[in-house]
Amino acid sequence: MCPSCEPEAAANANGNGHTNGTSNGTNGSNGTNGHPGFTAVQTKSNPHQHRSNPYQPVGDFLSNVNNFKIIESTLREGEQFANAFFDLPKKIEIAKALDDFGVDYIELTSPAASEQSRLDCEEICKLGLKAKILTHIRCHMDDARIAVQTGVDGVDVVIGTSSYLMEHSHGKDMTYITNTAIEVINYVKSHNIEIRFSSEDSFRSNLVDLLSIYSTVDKIGVNRVGIADTVGCASPRQVYDLIRTLRGVVSCDIETHFHNDTGCAIANAYCALEAGATHIDTSVLGIGERNGITPLGGLMARMIVADRDYVIGKYKLHKLKDIEDLVAQAVEVNIPFNNYITGYSAFSHKAGIHAKAILNNPSTYEIINPADFGMTRYIHYASRLTGWNAIKSRANQLQIEMTDAQYKECTESIKALADIRPITLDDTDSIIRAFQRNLKLGKTKTADLLPNMTDEEQAVLAKKERQIDIPEKRELDIAAEIPLAKKANQGVTA
Amino acid sequence: MCPSCEPEAAANANGNGHTNGTSNGTNGSNGTNGHPGFTAVQTKSNPHQHRSNPYQPVGDFLSNVNNFKIIESTLREGEQFANAFFDLPKKIEIAKALDDFGVDYIELTSPAASEQSRLDCEEICKLGLKAKILTHIRCHMDDARIAVQTGVDGVDVVIGTSSYLMEHSHGKDMTYITNTAIEVINYVKSHNIEIRFSSEDSFRSNLVDLLSIYSTVDKIGVNRVGIADTVGCASPRQVYDLIRTLRGVVSCDIETHFHNDTGCAIANAYCALEAGATHIDTSVLGIGERNGITPLGGLMARMIVADRDYVIGKYKLHKLKDIEDLVAQAVEVNIPFNNYITGYSAFSHKAGIHAKAILNNPSTYEIINPADFGMTRYIHYASRLTGWNAIKSRANQLQIEMTDAQYKECTESIKALADIRPITLDDTDSIIRAFQRNLKLGKTKTADLLPNMTDEEQAVLAKKERQIDIPEKRELDIAAEIPLAKKANQGVTA
Repeated sequence: MCPSCEPEAAANANGNGHTNGTSNGTNGSNGTNGHPGFTAVQTKSNPHQHRSNPYQPVGDFLSNVNNFKIIESTLREGEQFANAFFDLPKKIEIAKALDDFGVDYIELTSPAASEQSRLDCEEICKLGLKAKILTHIRCHMDDARIAVQTGVDGVDVVIGTSSYLMEHSHGKDMTYITNTAIEVINYVKSHNIEIRFSSEDSFRSNLVDLLSIYSTVDKIGVNRVGIADTVGCASPRQVYDLIRTLRGVVSCDIETHFHNDTGCAIANAYCALEAGATHIDTSVLGIGERNGITPLGGLMARMIVADRDYVIGKYKLHKLKDIEDLVAQAVEVNIPFNNYITGYSAFSHKAGIHAKAILNNPSTYEIINPADFGMTRYIHYASRLTGWNAIKSRANQLQIEMTDAQYKECTESIKALADIRPITLDDTDSIIRAFQRNLKLGKTKTADLLPNMTDEEQAVLAKKERQIDIPEKRELDIAAEIPLAKKANQGVTA
Repeated sequence: MCPSCEPEAAANANGNGHTNGTSNGTNGSNGTNGHPGFTAVQTKSNPHQHRSNPYQPVGDFLSNVNNFKIIESTLREGEQFANAFFDLPKKIEIAKALDDFGVDYIELTSPAASEQSRLDCEEICKLGLKAKILTHIRCHMDDARIAVQTGVDGVDVVIGTSSYLMEHSHGKDMTYITNTAIEVINYVKSHNIEIRFSSEDSFRSNLVDLLSIYSTVDKIGVNRVGIADTVGCASPRQVYDLIRTLRGVVSCDIETHFHNDTGCAIANAYCALEAGATHIDTSVLGIGERNGITPLGGLMARMIVADRDYVIGKYKLHKLKDIEDLVAQAVEVNIPFNNYITGYSAFSHKAGIHAKAILNNPSTYEIINPADFGMTRYIHYASRLTGWNAIKSRANQLQIEMTDAQYKECTESIKALADIRPITLDDTDSIIRAFQRNLKLGKTKTADLLPNMTDEEQAVLAKKERQIDIPEKRELDIAAEIPLAKKANQGVTA
């Protein structure tokens, strides 16, 4: 089968990311027919296409990658980000945006942290959002008493269980922790409020202690237990093993919270879901203590590849960028250039072979369809890494038709000029236009194809032309109408 | 055992991250003695401490997490980043910096990409670096002929093997790919140059095709085979499974290349090493096509947690920030605020319980010791999330001694003021100083503790004081010497 003679339509029909996670049978098949320029021999198609690649996800009763909930913690973990100071109007704005996006829960800073934190918590509970409102407290009756009075739908209780935290943070042992947990849980449950019990620093805690306390709190009826990689040390296979073990010990839901110090926060969330976790903590742009936690946008990028229908059906993905802009502005940071989905370069393609293939079918080099998030892809034509297929495509956009040999010659000129200095899309367009015009006039000289060259650059180019043997030397034609272009980063276009 | 009565010394002795990957026996033990303020009951120590947590890494003959090589591709993959234009002097500067850092290989753009790319390749080969120089070419004899003339130590050959790329990129079938690969490999080997053969888009390729061609090229003597997640779709457990399978099929080294579109590039590299891969491709800040690949710094963060001795012994970690600054400047991007290790917030601690524990022992909330990278940790005292232990510590730094009850009262004042607006470290210091001075004078009023308040803020605070019942109201004392502080982000300090 040929997934795309009409690239965009095919990409949408195949669902882009969709072709990876939930197979439509094209994965691994290499037969084809009728695609212009396609030269491969037709081979026998695989009668068991769904099994053609054992590394495709298969149905797994443990896995929740197509059925997970988000606990959005920008207003709790995110408030622990170095720059964060959210006043009540900003908290309300963020909470409403997250609710509109479709998150299942919104977690707020403990009402015991400060008086204003308590008042904010009460106000957000009164908004009547679809998302359930949680607050996050220490495992302590004083905090629990304050929390249940705020009007929250649920309380997330946490206490450190690693030797580090037992010694250097709260100084309590497991017996004390267990007894306090039971008291707090029963108290919160008596107010008909959802309750989660989480360890902190779970991956540096004693496994027997962990399973023991989770088993205890499960029996007394917590809604969720939580596993937290508080210091960001866990690796994906550790996460899978621990969650899978825990899945066999408790019957309640399993929430997970992953810090990103060692770059595994998204991957660990994914592996946790594969092992049977039900809830993932996120924050917008991942903001939180240190370099933060699983980012909402990054999790969307991961999960849309696993189950596009579920993610698109549940979350308003086209609002992601607005939410990120809102939070970035509130905490005074820039969106990282390489941010998932919304970053400057997330859908930029540059090398010639990439650009060529993307023009044929975006699924070749994109696992996520930018249109699913209201984003656009960009193809760099204007660099030394460009190729003649990309230039041909750009020329056609400019309604310029030449022979393939002429496109190739034009491309060589562009690459020679791009070797000297960064060139912009305007430069490239000018060169294509001038090249064609000069062809018609029967004359050209490479230097004249590039506008706004300095004398020094002209000299370098002249030297290069001697080196690389430009096919023909023709006389000067001043291209008076070629526009000037100044900035290298304009060399990016849709 | 008690890991730290002297926090910093203990953190260094324990090696911070070190306590996670390669156990020193403290993981999972919860016995202790003699730590001031520690109240837990002494429990029996576990005689099998190394087995106390099955989620610690154990010795595994497959794993190369403590024996891996880096193929640094900033000058190849990185040149495909949207903004990248490296002229020869910049390429030389970057290559020398990477060589000094200690990377094993430096990969360069194909000399077939443009004439200048070829000349640059030749010049970098002449530098006489310790790192081996590679260039990256299409699986094509034309490219191979150019590459072997440049003086490189090795050639990285790549060809797309997914149905997407076979149809929409090069248009060749597996028979053609295999035959060309054999021709190119034999040709490069005949020049006594290292050769790697890699598929492209490996995770959307037919497994049987992959194993077949890798087996073939292994038999004819390639130095490495490469697995590339070109579109960034792979998940950690897929990676582990594929690499482990491949490890049983080929005897040569295994190189891996992971894009970060779905946030798994670092985690996938780690799982690849666990499964027996030998080489990881990186670029500085991860720059590359779209949002890039496994970042050099992020990989260091991950690997120092797995084997601190290996990473510290092999790489000049304190030069990481300089290299990132060099490349960021060259491609005109900002270092992301949440960048691994070098980001603005990578070692910032804010919540009260975090700050308190970090002051006791940094390993409580840090899996990486910032000093290993020449970085510094920051503790936020100046926020509504602060706690009295953090304020006590800050007061002691200012050589101010009060009773615990007084620290707590002072902290309540700071939190009340931080509820009204962002406060800076200067604000906090001023409040602590004024609070103590007023105690001595027997008079205080909360509003006067905070300098530079507007009339509006004074009014809000007055209202708050009525709400929260500040213990004592005392008369005004103008704190004339309190410095003004303007910017909220000054509220961060070492």
